[in-house]
Amino acid sequence: MTHHANARPLGGGIIGLGLAGGIMAPIIAEHPGLTLAGAAETDASTRATFTADTGLPAYAEVCELLANPTVDFVYVATPHQCHRAHAVLAAEHGKHIIVEKPMALSLADCDAMIDAANANGVQLVIGHTHSFDPAIAAIRALIDSGRTGAPVSLAMWNFTDFLYRPRRPEELDSARGGGILYNQLPHQLDVARLIVNSPIRSVRAATTRLDPTRPTEGGCSAFVDFENGACATVVYSGYDRFDSDELHGWIAEGGQLKTARHGHARRMLSKIAGPEGEAAQRRVQFGYGAAGAHGNPPHQPHFGLMLVSCERADIRQSADGLYIYDDAGADEQPIIRSSWRPGRGDVLEELRRAVVDGVPPLHDGTFGRGTVEAAIAIAQSAAARREITITELAAA
Amino acid sequence: MTHHANARPLGGGIIGLGLAGGIMAPIIAEHPGLTLAGAAETDASTRATFTADTGLPAYAEVCELLANPTVDFVYVATPHQCHRAHAVLAAEHGKHIIVEKPMALSLADCDAMIDAANANGVQLVIGHTHSFDPAIAAIRALIDSGRTGAPVSLAMWNFTDFLYRPRRPEELDSARGGGILYNQLPHQLDVARLIVNSPIRSVRAATTRLDPTRPTEGGCSAFVDFENGACATVVYSGYDRFDSDELHGWIAEGGQLKTARHGHARRMLSKIAGPEGEAAQRRVQFGYGAAGAHGNPPHQPHFGLMLVSCERADIRQSADGLYIYDDAGADEQPIIRSSWRPGRGDVLEELRRAVVDGVPPLHDGTFGRGTVEAAIAIAQSAAARREITITELAAA
Ligand SMILES: NC(=O)c1ccc[n+]([C@@H]2O[C@H](COP(=O)([O-])OP(=O)(O)OC[C@H]3O[C@@H](n4cnc5c(N)ncnc54)[C@H](O)[C@@H]3O)[C@@H](O)[C@H]2O)c1
Ligand SMILES: NC(=O)c1ccc[n+]([C@@H]2O[C@H](COP(=O)([O-])OP(=O)(O)OC[C@H]3O[C@@H](n4cnc5c(N)ncnc54)[C@H](O)[C@@H]3O)[C@@H](O)[C@H]2O)c1
Repeated sequence: MTHHANARPLGGGIIGLGLAGGIMAPIIAEHPGLTLAGAAETDASTRATFTADTGLPAYAEVCELLANPTVDFVYVATPHQCHRAHAVLAAEHGKHIIVEKPMALSLADCDAMIDAANANGVQLVIGHTHSFDPAIAAIRALIDSGRTGAPVSLAMWNFTDFLYRPRRPEELDSARGGGILYNQLPHQLDVARLIVNSPIRSVRAATTRLDPTRPTEGGCSAFVDFENGACATVVYSGYDRFDSDELHGWIAEGGQLKTARHGHARRMLSKIAGPEGEAAQRRVQFGYGAAGAHGNPPHQPHFGLMLVSCERADIRQSADGLYIYDDAGADEQPIIRSSWRPGRGDVLEELRRAVVDGVPPLHDGTFGRGTVEAAIAIAQSAAARREITITELAAA
Repeated sequence: MTHHANARPLGGGIIGLGLAGGIMAPIIAEHPGLTLAGAAETDASTRATFTADTGLPAYAEVCELLANPTVDFVYVATPHQCHRAHAVLAAEHGKHIIVEKPMALSLADCDAMIDAANANGVQLVIGHTHSFDPAIAAIRALIDSGRTGAPVSLAMWNFTDFLYRPRRPEELDSARGGGILYNQLPHQLDVARLIVNSPIRSVRAATTRLDPTRPTEGGCSAFVDFENGACATVVYSGYDRFDSDELHGWIAEGGQLKTARHGHARRMLSKIAGPEGEAAQRRVQFGYGAAGAHGNPPHQPHFGLMLVSCERADIRQSADGLYIYDDAGADEQPIIRSSWRPGRGDVLEELRRAVVDGVPPLHDGTFGRGTVEAAIAIAQSAAARREITITELAAA
C-alpha cells in the first residue's frame, strides 16, 4: 500500500485514549502532514470527552476504528498485553502502525507483529521512546559526521518517581509485564542501541523490588555489551527519592520545568485508597484530556543523565542542545527545532516519511524486537545472577 | 609491639617523596597525635629540599630510614611495583605501615605483606583512598543507624584528566600496573566495598584504551556484584573530556575549587617533550614541595558522582555533607569537621588508633587485598569479555 505525496494528509486513529493516547492526540492534530481521524477506547466517558473535544468518532471496538476509511494509520496506545492483538488487527485492515513501547512482552508476539506488517505491506514503527528525541538524532548525526569517532561507552542514569504514579494493577505485576523493565528500560535501551548502532551481545543486570506495596521491579543496574565492542551501563530507579533531573536543571523528561519534586508522587499517592481508587485516579490525572501540556516545551525532552564517550570526545545533553567535550575543550551545540513537538512529533514524522516518502523507519519492528529481547535478557540475568548472552536467549 | 598512650607522638617516616609523599608530609606534621620523623627518597635534590624545609633527615636508602628509632611507622608512597618490598622491609624492622593504593600488583604480593605484618606484630593500613573521606564514613554511619535500610545498588561516575597528567613511563604501561585499573579504580572499589560491607562476588567490565600515545587503560565501565546481593555500576574515564566535577559544583577531588577545566591537562602536557620531559615535569609539578595546598580545603573531598540507593533512601554527597532522599523528601546533613585534613588525615588517624588505642583498622591488609583482587578481576573480565567470579580468580 502506498500513499501519494499529493494526497490528503494521513489520517491517524488512536487505539487507547489513556496517558499515551491522550498526549499523542493533539500532537497528531498539530502535525503538518497528518490529521486526527478518530479513536477506539473501551471507556465510554473517555470516548464522550474525545468526541466532544474533537468532533471525531470514538469507537468502543477497535475493528470499528479500523473500518473507517479516513484512518490511514493507527497509534496503538493500549496496555502492553494488547499490543500484539491490536497491531496485527490493524495490519490485517491495511493500516500503517505505530506501536507504543514495549513492542510486546514476548519475542513470539514481536515476530507475529513483524510478519503481519510484512504480509499486509504496511509500515510498522515502534515508539515513542526517548530515542526519538532530537538530542539523540543530533548525537547520532554528530557521530556520523566523524568529529567524535565511534562511541565506546555510554553511562546512563535515570532516577524518577515512576513506581508512585497511579497505576493499573498489571503495571505492578511483573508476571504481566509490570514494573520498569518493559516500561522504562526500553527508553534507555532504545537510546543506547540507536547511538551505538550495533546489536546487543550480552547483559549483566540486577533489579530491585524495594516496596512490598508495589511488588514489582522499580530499579535496575545493567551492564550492556554490544557486538561492536561498545558497552553501556544503565541505571534506573523509579522510587521517587533522588531525582536525576536535579542534575539537569530541573527540566522534566518532556522538556518542561519540573515543580513537583522530592517525594511529591509518593505523597499524592498516599491520599488514594486501594487499587480501584488508583486506577480511577490514573484516568483523572493521566487519561485523555488531563495530561500533556500542548505545544512545544521550553527545553528539549530527555531521559536522565547520559554520557556518551566516543573515541575522541564525550557528549552530553544540555537543556537545549548538546555539550561536546573534546581536545579543544567544551562546546555547546544548540538543537534546531522542528515545527513538530520534539520526540513524539518525530515518531509521527518517521511513520509519515516511511509511508509517503518511502524512507525505511529507523525504529522498525526488528529494532523494537531487539529492545524487547534486551529487556528479557535483563530480567533473566537478574534472576540467574549471571551474564546472559542474546544467543542463549534466542536458543531458548 | 605496642605503643603507650602517654608516650611521645608517633613518628612517621615517608618512603618516596613524590606526589603522594609530598602531599602527606605536611599532613603528618600537622596531625595532633603524630610527628614527621624523616623520609627515604632516591632523588638527591628532593632529599635536599625536604631537609631544608623540615630540618629532618632524608635518606637515599629505605633501610637507613628504617634504622632510625624516631620512626614508629612508615608511609609507603613509592611506585606500585615497590610497595611489597618496602612494606615487608618495614615490617621486618618492626615499623607500623601505611601502604599507598594499590596495596600491590598481585595477590601473592599482598599475601606476603599481610604475612610480614602479622609475623612482626605491626599494624598495616592500606590508603589513602577516597574511602577514608569523611563523607564515606558518614554514609556508613547513616546506614548503620538503620534510617535508610541496607544499600542495594551504587552508581558511580568519575570523569577526570588522569591520563594527561605528567606520568612516569610505567604509569602508561599496563604490563607494569599502569593506567587507571590499579591507580584510580581502587578509590571507587574501596568506597563501594566500604559502603556495601560485603565481599565482591563477580565483576563484568569493559576497559578503553583510546589514545595510542598513552597506550594503557584510561576508561572503565564495570558491573560489580556483591555477595550480599547489592551491586555497583562503576564508570571511570581519565581522558580529560567531560569532567564530572562539573556536576559537583566544580569542587575538585581534594575539596578545593577547581579552576583548571576542560582539556587543561591535555593542553599543558602538549607543551612537554618526550618521556624524560614528562618525568621531569612530574617532579616539578607534583613532587615534594610542589603539590598539595596545605590546611583544610573549603569543601569535602570526593571521588566523582555517586548515588547510594538503599532500601528506604538514596544518599548522595553534597559539597559539605550528604543529601538524603527518603519518604520525607530531600534533606542535607552537614559533615562535622575533624581537626585533621579530611581523607588523608583520616588514614593517619586510622593507623594511630590501631597502634595507640588497639582499634583494628577498617582498611587492613585483607581489605586492601580485596580491592586488588577486584581490579584483577576487572582486567580479566575486560580481556575475556565475560563475567569473572572472584572464586575462579582464587582458583587460578
Ligand atoms: N512512550 C511513552 O512515553 C509512553 C507514555 C505512557 C504510556 N506508554 C505506553 O502506552 C501504553 C499505554 O499506557 P498508558 O500509560 O497510556 O495506559 P493507560 O492505562 O493510561 O491507558 C490505556 C487506555 O487504553 C484503553 N484500553 C484498554 N484496552 C482497550 C481496548 N481493548 N480497546 C480500546 N482501548 C482500550 C484503556 O481504557 C485506557 O484508556 C503502554 O504500553 C505504555 O508502555 C508510553
Ligand atoms: N591516594 C592517593 O590519592 C594517591 C595520590 C598519588 C599517588 N598515590 C600512590 O602513591 C604511589 C606513588 O605515586 P606518586 O604519584 O607519588 O609517584 P611519584 O612518581 O610522584 O613519586 C614516587 C617517588 O618515590 C621515589 N622513589 C622511587 N623508588 C624509590 C625507592 N626505592 N626508595 C625511595 N624512594 C623511591 C621517586 O623518586 C619519587 O619521588 C603510587 O602507588 C600511587 O598509586 C596515591
